[in-house]
Amino acid sequence: MNFRIVLLILGRILILAAVSMAPSLFVSLLYHDGTHMAFVISMAVVLGSGLILTVFFKKNERTMRPREGFIAVALCWMAISLFGALPPYISGAIPNYVDALFEMVAGFTTTGAAVLPSVESLPEGIVFWRAFSQWLGGMGVLILTLAIVPAGERGVYNLVRAESTGPSSERLVPRVRQSAIILYAIYISLTLLQTVMLLFGKMSLYDALIHAFSTAGTGGFSSYDKSIGAFNSSYIEYTVGVFMLLFSVNLGLYYAAVTREFSRIRKNTEIKVFLGIVIVSIALIAADLTRNNVYLSFSETLRHSFFHTVSLSSSTAFFMVDYNLWPNFSKIVLLCLMMIGGCAGSTASGLKVIRVTTLCKSAAREVKRIIHPRAVSVVHINKESVQDKALTSVQQFFVIYVLVVIAATLVVSLDNMGLETTFTGVIAMLSNIGPGFGIVGPTANYSGFSLLSKLVFSLCMIIGRLEILPILMLIFPSTWKRA
Amino acid sequence: MNFRIVLLILGRILILAAVSMAPSLFVSLLYHDGTHMAFVISMAVVLGSGLILTVFFKKNERTMRPREGFIAVALCWMAISLFGALPPYISGAIPNYVDALFEMVAGFTTTGAAVLPSVESLPEGIVFWRAFSQWLGGMGVLILTLAIVPAGERGVYNLVRAESTGPSSERLVPRVRQSAIILYAIYISLTLLQTVMLLFGKMSLYDALIHAFSTAGTGGFSSYDKSIGAFNSSYIEYTVGVFMLLFSVNLGLYYAAVTREFSRIRKNTEIKVFLGIVIVSIALIAADLTRNNVYLSFSETLRHSFFHTVSLSSSTAFFMVDYNLWPNFSKIVLLCLMMIGGCAGSTASGLKVIRVTTLCKSAAREVKRIIHPRAVSVVHINKESVQDKALTSVQQFFVIYVLVVIAATLVVSLDNMGLETTFTGVIAMLSNIGPGFGIVGPTANYSGFSLLSKLVFSLCMIIGRLEILPILMLIFPSTWKRA
Repeated sequence: MNFRIVLLILGRILILAAVSMAPSLFVSLLYHDGTHMAFVISMAVVLGSGLILTVFFKKNERTMRPREGFIAVALCWMAISLFGALPPYISGAIPNYVDALFEMVAGFTTTGAAVLPSVESLPEGIVFWRAFSQWLGGMGVLILTLAIVPAGERGVYNLVRAESTGPSSERLVPRVRQSAIILYAIYISLTLLQTVMLLFGKMSLYDALIHAFSTAGTGGFSSYDKSIGAFNSSYIEYTVGVFMLLFSVNLGLYYAAVTREFSRIRKNTEIKVFLGIVIVSIALIAADLTRNNVYLSFSETLRHSFFHTVSLSSSTAFFMVDYNLWPNFSKIVLLCLMMIGGCAGSTASGLKVIRVTTLCKSAAREVKRIIHPRAVSVVHINKESVQDKALTSVQQFFVIYVLVVIAATLVVSLDNMGLETTFTGVIAMLSNIGPGFGIVGPTANYSGFSLLSKLVFSLCMIIGRLEILPILMLIFPSTWKRA
Repeated sequence: MNFRIVLLILGRILILAAVSMAPSLFVSLLYHDGTHMAFVISMAVVLGSGLILTVFFKKNERTMRPREGFIAVALCWMAISLFGALPPYISGAIPNYVDALFEMVAGFTTTGAAVLPSVESLPEGIVFWRAFSQWLGGMGVLILTLAIVPAGERGVYNLVRAESTGPSSERLVPRVRQSAIILYAIYISLTLLQTVMLLFGKMSLYDALIHAFSTAGTGGFSSYDKSIGAFNSSYIEYTVGVFMLLFSVNLGLYYAAVTREFSRIRKNTEIKVFLGIVIVSIALIAADLTRNNVYLSFSETLRHSFFHTVSLSSSTAFFMVDYNLWPNFSKIVLLCLMMIGGCAGSTASGLKVIRVTTLCKSAAREVKRIIHPRAVSVVHINKESVQDKALTSVQQFFVIYVLVVIAATLVVSLDNMGLETTFTGVIAMLSNIGPGFGIVGPTANYSGFSLLSKLVFSLCMIIGRLEILPILMLIFPSTWKRA
């Protein structure tokens, strides 16, 4: 284990974190919300720590193996959350440090889970910081540093691999740094486009930015307790809905569209399956809501089905109504969407459509094999056959995911919040959704849980954002052996 | 697809089913419960159908491929349940046929789930038939016919493979029929031993037989609404508890003990892991019950922890108290035990300890592989290395299991019984436990569900008992193509 390179990267991330607090400081000054000193102190502490690390560990071998990549990513995400919790804590907006940590982990991991009863009483600077942290976390903070700082290290691809969502092995262009720049260009363009469109819907610039950040990162933090429902505007609902969909898709496909490589989009299995899942889910939920006479008109039913389906598929969890009160069938469909998540290479979280597709296809093959033991049957993804090794790797991931769900559920169940709340809360954390069902439904929050559960939830959010392995590796002793 | 051989086997099973109603007819006559005519009519119908099939399809090629084995087992289990439901239905004891079917599927699959509010008002003959069906289903009805009738068919091992629980490839002796006889000899001996021991506990012969049948098949049907709690005797509780454990273990190991092949027992990974799981679960539940001050004394806590841990581990679900009222943590531990189940080659159901062990070991290997990409790491079971193909097969099974859980949960959720009830009900059915949590807890029953849900639950019980694949194959069109 090469600690020096890990600490160097950690230092760079802290510098980035300090700089990224600047817009929130500006908002705080603009609104005179009294939190500017908290931001100044936090920035000084974080910048100082970052500079010390980068200067101290400047000289080292500069070769990163997969192991160092995973560990660097895991530690950076923990550090950015721990330091990011300083402004809300120091300003007194969230007086309990564990609560502040929970809130900022929910930000950076794009979970958007609240621990506070009301967001509307928070100072503007803090609300902005919460929302901006989702934007930073969505595409990945380490990928951002790669886009900004020319990295001299070899094996820097291991960082991208550990931080990207989903098993998407395609690189946009052969060079890692160039890929990172292209991805961030797409990300920034889409965010700006959404901001402008929300301004057309008569949102204030402040609200438009906050909701664009939350949508882009598929996080779900709003500046209103009633979330998107507060605007009572179908224009805003559909705009946010469509952008949630856009951000759940592999951002690399937009690059393919720009460079006119349409065959890459046509061959992409994941996006077809994803859109299929979304359309079928909207239909199923609309049918269930109609059957149970939940809404007065069919257009209202369809509007809510569409919005909440894309909201949970994209792991954003903006809401218009309390879907926790919907009938069981709709809730189970939503829970499935929460577990599946969006496409690999998007800002959405969850198991990822590509993995679920692979699991289902390989399950069907297994049954066919027993019926026709001698037939050769191959799983195809993106019109190419998938090797058995890749299938096994996805299955392993799924098994580890289930084991993590069970372990977290066991610990959180000590709080006696009921099985529905405990289980859906863990799923909501691991899939970076935010609200679950029961006591932690969309209009509620996680404040009722014990300190232990809040820490476990925070860990689950990071585990979910980094897709388990980096965090899991931290607990294996052999990871820490010196090279 | 060779239909002729499948129908011949179906005919034999029906003859066996008719004969197996005889003891219940005898009980009915003994107690003058008024159901004897229902048994006589049912036996005539079932025997007639069986004879017609066997005579009509006597002549055929007599070679069974895996496909025919799976289909024969699937159809036989459906047929035996459909015909087995005749006595309770004709006698009027269960006036609704779907309810009668649910009850008898719960019997044959050793689920022991009730659809009736009270068992104590049922006629003795019917109660005996319910209990006896669990004994028949526990070791497998097709394995029983193999033990009785000399089978001339080639490939008869495919029947055993499709009906046995768990991926236990070891055969006791090279010849299939001899293995079947040995297994049934062990099964009958243990059942008799338990009956005698229960008689010592001052149970009536009728109650002793019923509870021995239910324990042997790890089914859980009792003749009392309060289950084992009705006897209020720690002797009976511990006797039943120990026998539930004995029947959750690969019965082949008792043969190894008799033939003094102790090395086979020592090398067996599954039994060690199983006992480990049981001991840890007892400790965890006892600690949780103590923490929440559920019982007055520690000895009472331990007594309930032991009994209900082995009861749910073995998928029997006898109960002494309503564990649905226990704190969340204990319930989640019990839910995990329900999913894991007992050892392969036992009468217990669930995923099986061997599969769960394999899944966990291969997950740990995956993490190690990322830390040390070049190291060779092998999964060991029974002190032998497991091939990757076998690992993949277990992972595939698990994925299919999860997909079945999701599909069943979706359908049952249409009844709006709450997420906890719906999900744990499906798990309880698939693992052949019986009661779940919530509305379907141990002191409750499945009567509140719709017709559709009862049919889905019945299918889940058979899917669980036959470990998914035989039933899943029924829905693949290519299964039905003529050879």
